[in-house]
Amino acid sequence: MEQKEKKISKAIIQRLPRYYRYLGELLSQGVDRISSSDFSKLMGVTASQIRQDLNNFGGFGQQGYGYNVKNLYEEIGKILGIDRVHNIIVIGAGNFGKALAGYSDFEKRGFRIKALFDKDSTKVGKTYSGITIHPMEELRTYIADNNIEIAALTVPKAAAIELASVLKDTGIKGIWNFAHTDLNVPDSIVVENVHLSESIMRLSYNMKSRNAGS
Amino acid sequence: MEQKEKKISKAIIQRLPRYYRYLGELLSQGVDRISSSDFSKLMGVTASQIRQDLNNFGGFGQQGYGYNVKNLYEEIGKILGIDRVHNIIVIGAGNFGKALAGYSDFEKRGFRIKALFDKDSTKVGKTYSGITIHPMEELRTYIADNNIEIAALTVPKAAAIELASVLKDTGIKGIWNFAHTDLNVPDSIVVENVHLSESIMRLSYNMKSRNAGS
Repeated sequence: MEQKEKKISKAIIQRLPRYYRYLGELLSQGVDRISSSDFSKLMGVTASQIRQDLNNFGGFGQQGYGYNVKNLYEEIGKILGIDRVHNIIVIGAGNFGKALAGYSDFEKRGFRIKALFDKDSTKVGKTYSGITIHPMEELRTYIADNNIEIAALTVPKAAAIELASVLKDTGIKGIWNFAHTDLNVPDSIVVENVHLSESIMRLSYNMKSRNAGS
Repeated sequence: MEQKEKKISKAIIQRLPRYYRYLGELLSQGVDRISSSDFSKLMGVTASQIRQDLNNFGGFGQQGYGYNVKNLYEEIGKILGIDRVHNIIVIGAGNFGKALAGYSDFEKRGFRIKALFDKDSTKVGKTYSGITIHPMEELRTYIADNNIEIAALTVPKAAAIELASVLKDTGIKGIWNFAHTDLNVPDSIVVENVHLSESIMRLSYNMKSRNAGS
């Protein structure tokens, strides 16, 4: 079995959370197992694609049985690293920051938003969805004292670039970047970008090309 | 020249908005042209990747000259379909909806948010960033009367599924879906998903695999 530490393609990583989501929905509907072909129909991808993807992780299907929903859900959860809690802070208590703080779906998946941070002193001390806004001066000590692994940046571009530089020696392991810029960080920190402007441009492109009848 | 209506890969479409962003920054810094190798360093991708990507659209570089920033910016803008205005409504005036309404970057790129919609009658009539919240009853007529092409859905899952069904015969051409579900719409409507839960799972996966020393 060569399943361990095999290099997984980026495309598969893109798809794994979607498998996880569908399996979670099946679980909550009380579905114990699903055939490869039903799973394929549900997800709108070919059964062979699903098999190929899951084979990268040792393969969880059994001939003539299909997939055990709970097992597969848990295994993918482990692969994604969400079989344990991740502590998060959100820097920038604007609308996006508040939206993240109020999004209970994250908590369900073990992503626990512990605090908001903002440089605006008039916001400090307020709470949103039970999460308190802290002053920027407390950033370093808060991260150290609360085992924070992920910082979500919901601040303007220039502030995000500055923050990336501040965060690099705080022990933060991941930055969830909502600012419309790329960040320079050491290799030890993973950046996941949510570039909404790029997302809406892709929408526009696809609308245009679909209209052209392609 | 086979540049017209060539089938463009999804991976390139993923990258085009990023080219566009960097070119826009160069433009605003007064840069007229950039060599393929400087552009490559700036973007952190190989020069050959850039050439390959842009060749799909007829190629805009000239040997020994590099890229004309303004031309390339405008050409990519046309390809992305953002050389004109798109009218947008945001359905769901919660924190995410308000955040979108307040995000001036979209307007700069020709994405004009014209109205918010919410089923909560206590919100109706209020404005955020100059954008008024309308009642759901006005949805159809508003879309028709204001040449709305895109609906952003910042509502819970069940509401998004319902709305997708309502929107399908309104003339809407694109749905920007922030709900954590896939939507069933006719082929004439393009859906662009922003699945934040999946984004943070990818972050978690990459943190885990980087930690494992891969």
